[in-house]
Amino acid sequence: MTGRQQPREIISPRNPILKVFRRGLAEGVTREGWLAVEGPFLVEEALRAAQRAVVHSALVSRTAAEKFCALLRRLPKEAEIAQVSDRLFGQLAQTQSPQGIAALVELRSDNLDAILAGGDALSLVACGLQDPGNLGTMMRSAQALGATALLTLEDTVSPFNPKAVRASAGTVFHLPIFPDQAARALFVRLRAAKVRIVAADRRSPSPLAQADLRGPVAILIGQESAGLPPEISHEASLLLSIPIRAGTDSVNAATAASIFLYETARQRGFKY
Amino acid sequence: MTGRQQPREIISPRNPILKVFRRGLAEGVTREGWLAVEGPFLVEEALRAAQRAVVHSALVSRTAAEKFCALLRRLPKEAEIAQVSDRLFGQLAQTQSPQGIAALVELRSDNLDAILAGGDALSLVACGLQDPGNLGTMMRSAQALGATALLTLEDTVSPFNPKAVRASAGTVFHLPIFPDQAARALFVRLRAAKVRIVAADRRSPSPLAQADLRGPVAILIGQESAGLPPEISHEASLLLSIPIRAGTDSVNAATAASIFLYETARQRGFKY
Repeated sequence: MTGRQQPREIISPRNPILKVFRRGLAEGVTREGWLAVEGPFLVEEALRAAQRAVVHSALVSRTAAEKFCALLRRLPKEAEIAQVSDRLFGQLAQTQSPQGIAALVELRSDNLDAILAGGDALSLVACGLQDPGNLGTMMRSAQALGATALLTLEDTVSPFNPKAVRASAGTVFHLPIFPDQAARALFVRLRAAKVRIVAADRRSPSPLAQADLRGPVAILIGQESAGLPPEISHEASLLLSIPIRAGTDSVNAATAASIFLYETARQRGFKY
Repeated sequence: MTGRQQPREIISPRNPILKVFRRGLAEGVTREGWLAVEGPFLVEEALRAAQRAVVHSALVSRTAAEKFCALLRRLPKEAEIAQVSDRLFGQLAQTQSPQGIAALVELRSDNLDAILAGGDALSLVACGLQDPGNLGTMMRSAQALGATALLTLEDTVSPFNPKAVRASAGTVFHLPIFPDQAARALFVRLRAAKVRIVAADRRSPSPLAQADLRGPVAILIGQESAGLPPEISHEASLLLSIPIRAGTDSVNAATAASIFLYETARQRGFKY
């Protein structure tokens, strides 16, 4: 380590910063609402998203402090770096093979109304999903395929759940995310912004590819088994299905979301 | 239970049939090559695929024997049903919340050359994938979106891995599957059958949607981080990419496979 401050060595497992990391890594977010993420890849992605994400503190194991020395040097000057024994890091980590580095990241808050006002607004709305890996995969596709926001309704797994963040492959730092939206208020807001509400409904006779998906659109995706509850799909102006082979039931929810996003991007000429 | 044989009560954990289930449920397949699957949903799917799958034996916990009585009655007459205590079932099960029912299922062997000879042959070839959940999600999409076979190359996770089978949502029983193919021999076989070899390659400048994907096609999908090794992508006559937003790296491998399958199905008019 040269140039910036040395990591502060922490020995007591009761140290307050460790308490923050312990809780944060278990739940995904700290009380301040900062994301707690593990592994060099996610720390790297947080740094790459500098305009949207601020790394406030990092926690490293003694071994990792050497290994990720170049990465630590790139943290903001104000960021606090705490170093612990490999054993203590292992106790705090939630991953199966801890890589010895974690960080607390504050996400910039976005203005949903401004995003919805965009002419090419493309929101993905997850309704009731429970599998964090699936939601993370959706975030990754949303960012890759040009969505301008990801929203989750109430009673949906948190996009900041650690498994969701891992499956998002770092896109959680890049994509504007609005969790825990009250359904009724959201639909009012979407309509006010002249955003068309499109629901993925495998029972719909209207195939996805035949609908016009240009202009501001919000795509609602439900749980794979139950689909969207009637009071939600009722709000949609368009119910669309992915035509699938007879005798098959459905595709995975993240797959369905990705195909809806791909078809939308295709119709828009992949102009992101 | 009426009509057919009563379940045979097994008390000793050393009973040979339990040994077969124990090993099978841990590894996904028994020494005979039969799939070992857990839960009423997969047993149901195996029965629904009667032309392709034979249920040889079922294992039930005492509680589940009552609960799934109707399902057990639908097993083939020849199938052996073994009943154990709930505790013993819990020890054999690999799932987090065991549902008390498991089965050994023999899959019919398929003729790859006959499948490749079909005018609408659409094979999905997984190359090097390590995540069983991802491979299972691919199987599910392959079956839903009209693939006629799923193949895996050597050094790819087994499609019969228990996590892959669960993620496949039962499609493992319906879709012709050819695991562990030697790459060189497979490519010779595909060419002999006049199947075009298409590789998903995120670095390719040719966008997926602009290629003609009608006629017999095999789609190669590699690992997300590494992509396809050069010696594999070299075999493809067409390298295609999904156009993604600048600054994003890739989508999940199962997502990429599903988008390739969707685009192919779209071009073929969703005629499955």
